[in-house]
Amino acid sequence: MKRLSDYRAIVGDETISTLYRTARKLYGKKILQINSTYVGGGVAEILNSLTPLLVDAGVESDWRILNGNPDFFNITKKFHNALQGDKINLTDIKKSLYLEANQDFSVYAHINQSYDGVVVHDPQPLPLIQFYKKRQPWFWRCHVDLSHPNLEVWDFLKTYIVRYDRVILSDESYRKNDLPADYCIFAPVIDPLSNKNKELSDRDISKYLKKFNVREDKPIITQISRFDKFKDPLGVIKVFEKVRQEIDCRLVLCGSMAADDPEGVQIYEKVKNRAESFIKKGDIVLITSENNILVNALQRRSAVILQKSLKEGFGLTVTEGLWKAKAVVAANVGGIPLQIIDEQTGFLVDPTDIDQTARTVVRVLQDPEMAGKVGRQGREHVRKNFLVTRLVSDYLRLFNETL
Amino acid sequence: MKRLSDYRAIVGDETISTLYRTARKLYGKKILQINSTYVGGGVAEILNSLTPLLVDAGVESDWRILNGNPDFFNITKKFHNALQGDKINLTDIKKSLYLEANQDFSVYAHINQSYDGVVVHDPQPLPLIQFYKKRQPWFWRCHVDLSHPNLEVWDFLKTYIVRYDRVILSDESYRKNDLPADYCIFAPVIDPLSNKNKELSDRDISKYLKKFNVREDKPIITQISRFDKFKDPLGVIKVFEKVRQEIDCRLVLCGSMAADDPEGVQIYEKVKNRAESFIKKGDIVLITSENNILVNALQRRSAVILQKSLKEGFGLTVTEGLWKAKAVVAANVGGIPLQIIDEQTGFLVDPTDIDQTARTVVRVLQDPEMAGKVGRQGREHVRKNFLVTRLVSDYLRLFNETL
Repeated sequence: MKRLSDYRAIVGDETISTLYRTARKLYGKKILQINSTYVGGGVAEILNSLTPLLVDAGVESDWRILNGNPDFFNITKKFHNALQGDKINLTDIKKSLYLEANQDFSVYAHINQSYDGVVVHDPQPLPLIQFYKKRQPWFWRCHVDLSHPNLEVWDFLKTYIVRYDRVILSDESYRKNDLPADYCIFAPVIDPLSNKNKELSDRDISKYLKKFNVREDKPIITQISRFDKFKDPLGVIKVFEKVRQEIDCRLVLCGSMAADDPEGVQIYEKVKNRAESFIKKGDIVLITSENNILVNALQRRSAVILQKSLKEGFGLTVTEGLWKAKAVVAANVGGIPLQIIDEQTGFLVDPTDIDQTARTVVRVLQDPEMAGKVGRQGREHVRKNFLVTRLVSDYLRLFNETL
Repeated sequence: MKRLSDYRAIVGDETISTLYRTARKLYGKKILQINSTYVGGGVAEILNSLTPLLVDAGVESDWRILNGNPDFFNITKKFHNALQGDKINLTDIKKSLYLEANQDFSVYAHINQSYDGVVVHDPQPLPLIQFYKKRQPWFWRCHVDLSHPNLEVWDFLKTYIVRYDRVILSDESYRKNDLPADYCIFAPVIDPLSNKNKELSDRDISKYLKKFNVREDKPIITQISRFDKFKDPLGVIKVFEKVRQEIDCRLVLCGSMAADDPEGVQIYEKVKNRAESFIKKGDIVLITSENNILVNALQRRSAVILQKSLKEGFGLTVTEGLWKAKAVVAANVGGIPLQIIDEQTGFLVDPTDIDQTARTVVRVLQDPEMAGKVGRQGREHVRKNFLVTRLVSDYLRLFNETL
């Protein structure tokens, strides 16, 4: 069972003590978090950590999952993509299936009777609010990049957003001028005690690397990312080819490939073809298994963590890499510059500039002392700003203000 | 939104009126149902119908999903199979991961404060009860065939079962002499208004059949079943070969093939090889899509519904076939004889006897009038005994007795 006190050694007594004190006025308060899945994706990951920690602080936090059928999830995936700018054919059938699933759930989920506050995550359960007599503050926690939404979907969803007491966004830049609401900004976080981030013994690290055929006789460069065009794995191969002209090393690309994403399969095949000769020698390793401890082990054994995304949300893989006190070379896009102060907590590059990226990687590989120093500063930056204890604090302050 | 009154035309005013009256003493009572998934499988299907109907009757029924990670579900799947007699290596790690997931969930699911009764489905959330101070009756609803459990797993799970106020089984034969408990028997049911069972227009039926390349110029024999050795699809092909010596007709085998089941893929391949020449002519059609309306359409357009299982739980596909007033030819195993009274509500065969099964199918195809009469009697048998309204009644009576 997760407890705030488990984090004392990481964030210090004062932080933990302040959290417990901030919760004092909230004893007996009941909070509900609602999203659409227990597993898969960053939202479920964070709720798996956040919920028991709020309970430990003294807030009776609960967590429920919306009941949706496959049609519903197809539609809400389209909404999600449209909020990030994709096109959509917004038919009346889509709208009504979306509302129907929420209404059906509201019939038996008697959530308004027992809670003092309700936090709704992302678009799937957004319309729930309209099927209850509102008796408490409701918060909409949006994890999506809202900077360039498809306007038709945005306008439709606004109908429900305006009913909420607060809108919680991940970044200042997602604020919407056309939506007069009370906003809060909660930057994303990682859990330093999760399987992806907890300390691992040298033996366990080596065991996992061996299991996935990653040899340790050369410096390792790692990019953890889906095989997706915006993560530019092909660009990573090009960078690696240049780096190898200067220095002997090994590249690992590790990320899932969604079976329902034909583009992902194509990109994987292209990468595989281009990297063929390196793959044969074991100098490039492609891994599509999803395994949190493997990700952890790879990050901990790498000399350089790369994140050459052309487009990025916040970039939690960067946070994870920094947390392992590694030299992270990452694109100056999305939320990455919030995490990487160039040459201080990591290294920012122009992701379209293969030469510059390769030169930066070489420089890091050739100067382990400098890399170590920057890595430690990166870890410190994450410790102060992007750990789950900070998110616990954000929620406690929000609840203190509003309940 | 589902309402009991929607079922009036099917089960009659008296049944519906009795349900509403039985619920009278339960106004304001709060009931929670807990299982491990909203989608996939018979348990989720039934809870999707049952929960809103209990609400409509006046009981504040709620439904929650246990939070388990993939490791947990691997373990509980092994428990499930072991309860049905499979071998298992019951390690301490398996036991502790099983308990841990339940304990973690209990930390934030504050279920004992707000409910007057808790119904726990199947082995996954079974140990939950030990992590709460018990303040209300708890019921364990077991959907598994317990007649020959692996004794090691059974003994381990009994630790938790004995804490429950009632054990609800699907059949008398699952009672356990070595478990002194208060038992109830709730036979499985179908929902006549679900996509799998609701009325379909002729046009919709033809549309779905066409979409899946099932031509309608000959009588259709259908078996709806996974490609699983116990459903004996290869035996079905052999029966069809014999039937075709007497009468021109078409066979459809429709069922999912679990991607994680290598045996399923092998069986599918064997069936496909044996049936090759018929498949080329379109006289045998194999369908592995999962589509409830297609199942409904196939059952409604068939001349004979076959269920040649070597082993069967209750056999809900038989119930569905009978409900469509079809001549069902099915194996005399498991729960099938509860549904089929031979020559009255359907036709029982010895599933190891290909000749007898084929002769029965031929007899039905040659005498549509007799088939129609038996089919109508089968539908009536289901109407009286195996519709969801009966299950609503079972639960209301249980709650009246115990809350």
